[in-house]
Amino acid sequence: MRIAFQGEIGAYSEAAVQALFPDAEPVATPSFEAVFDAVENGEVPRGVVPIENSLHGSVHANYDLLRTRPVRIVGELHLRIRHCLMALASNTIDSIERVYSHPQALGQCRDFLQQRLAHAEAVPAYDTAGAARMVASMPWQHAAAVASRRAAEEYGLAILAESIESNHQNYTRFFVLAPQEAEVPPIPDEHEAKTSLVFSPAQNVPGALSHSLAVFAERDLDLFKIESHPLIGSPGQYIFYLDVEHTPQHEQLAEALERLNQNASFVKVLGAYTAGETIE
Amino acid sequence: MRIAFQGEIGAYSEAAVQALFPDAEPVATPSFEAVFDAVENGEVPRGVVPIENSLHGSVHANYDLLRTRPVRIVGELHLRIRHCLMALASNTIDSIERVYSHPQALGQCRDFLQQRLAHAEAVPAYDTAGAARMVASMPWQHAAAVASRRAAEEYGLAILAESIESNHQNYTRFFVLAPQEAEVPPIPDEHEAKTSLVFSPAQNVPGALSHSLAVFAERDLDLFKIESHPLIGSPGQYIFYLDVEHTPQHEQLAEALERLNQNASFVKVLGAYTAGETIE
Repeated sequence: MRIAFQGEIGAYSEAAVQALFPDAEPVATPSFEAVFDAVENGEVPRGVVPIENSLHGSVHANYDLLRTRPVRIVGELHLRIRHCLMALASNTIDSIERVYSHPQALGQCRDFLQQRLAHAEAVPAYDTAGAARMVASMPWQHAAAVASRRAAEEYGLAILAESIESNHQNYTRFFVLAPQEAEVPPIPDEHEAKTSLVFSPAQNVPGALSHSLAVFAERDLDLFKIESHPLIGSPGQYIFYLDVEHTPQHEQLAEALERLNQNASFVKVLGAYTAGETIE
Repeated sequence: MRIAFQGEIGAYSEAAVQALFPDAEPVATPSFEAVFDAVENGEVPRGVVPIENSLHGSVHANYDLLRTRPVRIVGELHLRIRHCLMALASNTIDSIERVYSHPQALGQCRDFLQQRLAHAEAVPAYDTAGAARMVASMPWQHAAAVASRRAAEEYGLAILAESIESNHQNYTRFFVLAPQEAEVPPIPDEHEAKTSLVFSPAQNVPGALSHSLAVFAERDLDLFKIESHPLIGSPGQYIFYLDVEHTPQHEQLAEALERLNQNASFVKVLGAYTAGETIE
């Protein structure tokens, strides 16, 4: 099975694909749009995209695509982000003069870089895996990259230090995407089932958001996530992302969704799935 | 009056300072922590930090600081982010061979760069203003930066194109910070007043989040923002950011906050302020 992800080989998204589908062939694509395209047009049966990071929040670009494209969520995974320092094997930490990575990854490793690599210059790059690829192909020897263990393996680099991120509570949540009409086995609706949806409250109605949320409170439905976000191109209008327990077939949730549909200007169920495991 | 912001002269945060305090002296600091430090220790009477962008969402690092530091919000501003292409005056768009900026800014200008600068290489940098400063000081002539109009003025660069961002609905919301105990004029509690707070629902109580939100719905209080975020270091616990109409002195909101305090494991009012204007 071929599974699309955004980024280069060695990206954290590729690690998510491998954890979710150990026997699959990860297919690298240049953008989130390209992952959705590949799923939509049947080029791949599934795609995997990041949706939320514990330090940096939601990936709004992917929520926008989920809202507008005919795909749905069929699975979930939480992946611990462990940054490694990697270089050609002839190096030690002390011989490194430049460290390449995405500015966010460099920022996440600031303590380590200040304490152990104060002698080196941190240089921004487009992404972590691309930094590793570049370091592996540079004729100049004293460069290192901050990227995943998988990137070091792929590009033949030696790992000089592992888990160098300052905050170890760094997890990214990924969604598995399938075409809207894909047939999937029914999800056992135990306490482990979740439904994700987006909605816009009715406009110009005082308290519209509070009342939209009350449909869940009145039925004692647990919410796992709720987030308002300005709807781009529609000033003053908001879109809400919401994760709630159960599947839409569950009696209480079915009722709540019916009520929400009556009150909201827009509702889309993005998918129902079993709560995903966490890969440390 | 000296006002602290994060970044270099020419950063979008400096433009926010100038719009909020036209006669003030903007004070550049290297990090968000440094802005909070400067306000806390009285080095400056006010600080300005970004809290939310219409394309990329909340700045969780600043919510974390608001939650844990003895400062409060006393004002708000929305600033349109207009990216400019700038270079030494000897250049035209066609002579540019490299474009430097933060990867996020380069991504936001992808359409323009592909259509008008396909001949040039996009090179990631730490921040937009820093890219402008670097381009201004480079002996090599054919470099450009993507940054603010203010950065072009500061570093003596010519603007080759303005508002080159693909999505013009690009706004950043800023908060004005004051020391917790600062005396400020009372806020007129008309429909323009807002209160921002953070809270954690009681743990291990089914439907705790829904019920926390019901205290606002029951009193017909309009919510402008709500967002759940995993509480770093406390697996399974969430923190909520919430913006609600009125000040905490308003009868309905005072009641709602009292009820919330009884049910939540943690509540902090971050400040009350008049809804900020939008600078286009």
